[in-house]
Amino acid sequence: MTSIGGKALGRDFWVVAGPCSVETREQVISTALSVKAAGADALRGGAFKPRTSPYAFHGLGREALSWLREAGTLAGLPVVTEVCDVRDAELVSQYADVLQIGCRNMQNYPLLVEVGRAGKPVMLKRGMCATIDEWLMSAEYILSEGNPNVILCERGIRGFDAETRNVLDLGAVAATKLKTKLPIIVDPSHATGRSELVAPMSLAAVMAGCDGLMLEVHPEPSRALSDERQQITPEAFKSLMESVRKVVALRPELTEANRWSE
Amino acid sequence: MTSIGGKALGRDFWVVAGPCSVETREQVISTALSVKAAGADALRGGAFKPRTSPYAFHGLGREALSWLREAGTLAGLPVVTEVCDVRDAELVSQYADVLQIGCRNMQNYPLLVEVGRAGKPVMLKRGMCATIDEWLMSAEYILSEGNPNVILCERGIRGFDAETRNVLDLGAVAATKLKTKLPIIVDPSHATGRSELVAPMSLAAVMAGCDGLMLEVHPEPSRALSDERQQITPEAFKSLMESVRKVVALRPELTEANRWSE
Amino acid sequence: MTSIGGKALGRDFWVVAGPCSVETREQVISTALSVKAAGADALRGGAFKPRTSPYAFHGLGREALSWLREAGTLAGLPVVTEVCDVRDAELVSQYADVLQIGCRNMQNYPLLVEVGRAGKPVMLKRGMCATIDEWLMSAEYILSEGNPNVILCERGIRGFDAETRNVLDLGAVAATKLKTKLPIIVDPSHATGRSELVAPMSLAAVMAGCDGLMLEVHPEPSRALSDERQQITPEAFKSLMESVRKVVALRPELTEANRWSE
Amino acid sequence: MTSIGGKALGRDFWVVAGPCSVETREQVISTALSVKAAGADALRGGAFKPRTSPYAFHGLGREALSWLREAGTLAGLPVVTEVCDVRDAELVSQYADVLQIGCRNMQNYPLLVEVGRAGKPVMLKRGMCATIDEWLMSAEYILSEGNPNVILCERGIRGFDAETRNVLDLGAVAATKLKTKLPIIVDPSHATGRSELVAPMSLAAVMAGCDGLMLEVHPEPSRALSDERQQITPEAFKSLMESVRKVVALRPELTEANRWSE
Repeated sequence: MTSIGGKALGRDFWVVAGPCSVETREQVISTALSVKAAGADALRGGAFKPRTSPYAFHGLGREALSWLREAGTLAGLPVVTEVCDVRDAELVSQYADVLQIGCRNMQNYPLLVEVGRAGKPVMLKRGMCATIDEWLMSAEYILSEGNPNVILCERGIRGFDAETRNVLDLGAVAATKLKTKLPIIVDPSHATGRSELVAPMSLAAVMAGCDGLMLEVHPEPSRALSDERQQITPEAFKSLMESVRKVVALRPELTEANRWSE
Repeated sequence: MTSIGGKALGRDFWVVAGPCSVETREQVISTALSVKAAGADALRGGAFKPRTSPYAFHGLGREALSWLREAGTLAGLPVVTEVCDVRDAELVSQYADVLQIGCRNMQNYPLLVEVGRAGKPVMLKRGMCATIDEWLMSAEYILSEGNPNVILCERGIRGFDAETRNVLDLGAVAATKLKTKLPIIVDPSHATGRSELVAPMSLAAVMAGCDGLMLEVHPEPSRALSDERQQITPEAFKSLMESVRKVVALRPELTEANRWSE
Repeated sequence: MTSIGGKALGRDFWVVAGPCSVETREQVISTALSVKAAGADALRGGAFKPRTSPYAFHGLGREALSWLREAGTLAGLPVVTEVCDVRDAELVSQYADVLQIGCRNMQNYPLLVEVGRAGKPVMLKRGMCATIDEWLMSAEYILSEGNPNVILCERGIRGFDAETRNVLDLGAVAATKLKTKLPIIVDPSHATGRSELVAPMSLAAVMAGCDGLMLEVHPEPSRALSDERQQITPEAFKSLMESVRKVVALRPELTEANRWSE
Repeated sequence: MTSIGGKALGRDFWVVAGPCSVETREQVISTALSVKAAGADALRGGAFKPRTSPYAFHGLGREALSWLREAGTLAGLPVVTEVCDVRDAELVSQYADVLQIGCRNMQNYPLLVEVGRAGKPVMLKRGMCATIDEWLMSAEYILSEGNPNVILCERGIRGFDAETRNVLDLGAVAATKLKTKLPIIVDPSHATGRSELVAPMSLAAVMAGCDGLMLEVHPEPSRALSDERQQITPEAFKSLMESVRKVVALRPELTEANRWSE
């Protein structure tokens, strides 16, 4: 069983929170302390940001990693951050407790192999049009390097309606739970692209059977350098965490009554 | 506010249950009594079944309507059934309390106009690749005939992964709630196509903010003449209803805490 | 072999042209004469227009049918027009030589049965997210009524990129040719939604093996009451027809050399 | 204007052919000689094969590169092969004349930057669910490194119908031609996944306005170690090339007559 910061994934519900991008030392420390106070289990923050345009903000790199590490240590939170480049796997491993593979890299096989060897748990996001079997095959690239600590993350598939950024595929979460023992978390921030949909989709994801959530939290979402429409405030995160705890607490009796986890 | 059988939709959580197809008088009566006992608010059952192939089972028509009506009356449940043909709208209205428009007919405009005039509430399923705006425009066809009682029903959109029959789009449910006052229910049976996914997706749908559920229940799913893989037994429905009630009871404090219904 | 106006579909390349909507008597007559002069084999024009919104222009109905008939007779062209309502099948059959089923009605089974009985050839558009097998099953509804004259029409499937209105699926055209003897035509106007893409996609469709084209032509596209972005002028149609003829003339030796029609 | 082996892309129609994977020295030399004799302009062959499963055949690596180079030299053909790993860019550049970025890596930005710096033309395949703008933004990653020689390659988008492997999006080819001066080629082998559809889709692609084709050719497709269903024989390639030449020769007068290239 994958254990991160004293939490056993799959048994303990696991919430990762933090800003889309690490922007300043103050921003990430302040966010870390507030999400920790609200009950988060890990801190996220982008140091290397894959962006559609080469001219967009791409993260602050090594400096952001050090701020993220400092913030995690101060807040007592393990740190999750993305690796985009095989050559950065070792560097990022020095700072991060969990290596994230983003949706664009789900089938970047050399990167999967490299993070498989890095000795850290890996969070593997589902590609935007990946089938469940393709996703599990990508996980297999990591597992077959001898790294059993893979965490799947559903973050929405590409759809035809611009009303939401992507289509959160909770049916795939429930179906994947029946195919693998790997823990699976859900990222409603990227899936919906709209902060006002994050709370209902987080709670829906819990009911669909996920093992955790990944939420983008920013002190001032409207001033964020990326994903400004989908980040929630620390206050909203605090309320949401209380709600998540209530739904998580209710879940065991529901799953048992309906025996869907068998 | 649309009221059906004493329930106010949007205020009272509303569960429609019953077999995919009405197959025998005994089957539908027995199912009606058992879903009523478990707490269903309405009985569903197909008398006219649109099927991809002209050679598949297409329902028993008028006879099925009379059995459905009888079963509803015996069980004390209002009856929901599909109309596929403008020429049947009046006939079906004599038996049904709610007229269902299936996903294939979401843009069958003469049919929408006809059910708009029939004087009964209409449940309008989302088309398999309809945007939210197209769906609401279809509702507008009914509303503009002077019929304010339209109930939207999300039943999954077409996806690329055969793992589930369709992709249940709960993000669209939450997004639609922000665009319209019309009640919206969710059909996890058709969306997933797999009975073992019906319970988690039902509870996830409640958390996403839906106003009700539509569930296929059959005394012996494996012997059903249609949709045999996705129907659940009366026993499973009973357990699920108890779970649904718990989640529905918890919801008001969650929505208030996260203010997502504002 | 389906024969319309002296042309044998599948053997003779068949081009249907005309305005999206019949707007005035003059408009349809003028368009009919010009497309006939350019070599069109049939005249199209919408009298009953299914539109997403109930408040959009829906066509002029019976009056438009009579103008269309008159224009066809004057120009010596058979007439193709859409039927949206089972109750209109007989009326439309009095005016039209070919009954069109639009993409929204591909699975409107009562309508398929009705046009199957009307004694006229039927052009069946593919639904926006229909598989080839679902499309052929819909054709089967018409065929099984004893009407062998079904013409398939590919008009684009729903995609994720707003750059084109739909995704013209020419691979499906080639694949369908291997599954059925029914003739299949292509509608690049609706598929692309952009007049500047109609010529290349028309010629590409010929190479993919289609048996004909359906093209929207309007005397003044920018003043059209519907689909103003995708209609081409009579002059553009004339040039395109000359090009189409050249490519059609070249095709037999290509198909024989590559034996793909076997 | 990008020039490869004496051919000016965008002006001269450019055909790349060869096996999916380089399997033996004999196989690639024999294929190279036969595709050269049939008129191919460049030789393709996979040395590093990204595959969905870690347990599938992944190519023979460096040895395959040397055979491919030898075969290209013997046949007088420039060589195109895929780079999957930033650390291989230099190695592959020593053997290849054109570096291919596969669809899974369209948004692998470090790899785009690295091939942008490698001093060789880059063929950039469209991702399976990438919009045209996302594709052009990925090209921009290469261009902004000072490498102007980017060749776009459409290879099909993910669809919902298993009848073809992907959906060849020729409308996107025509639409992209209106947005960029970069040459764009089409890969009907991966798009359709069926050898019997390669000829019609190749010729359709020419009509859609593409600047070249990429075709998988194998001496014995049924014995291929990968993509055995979609590779064509050298004999089929020879016939197809003759047909392609005829259609390419016809194209200038068609584009001029319809002025779609303006």
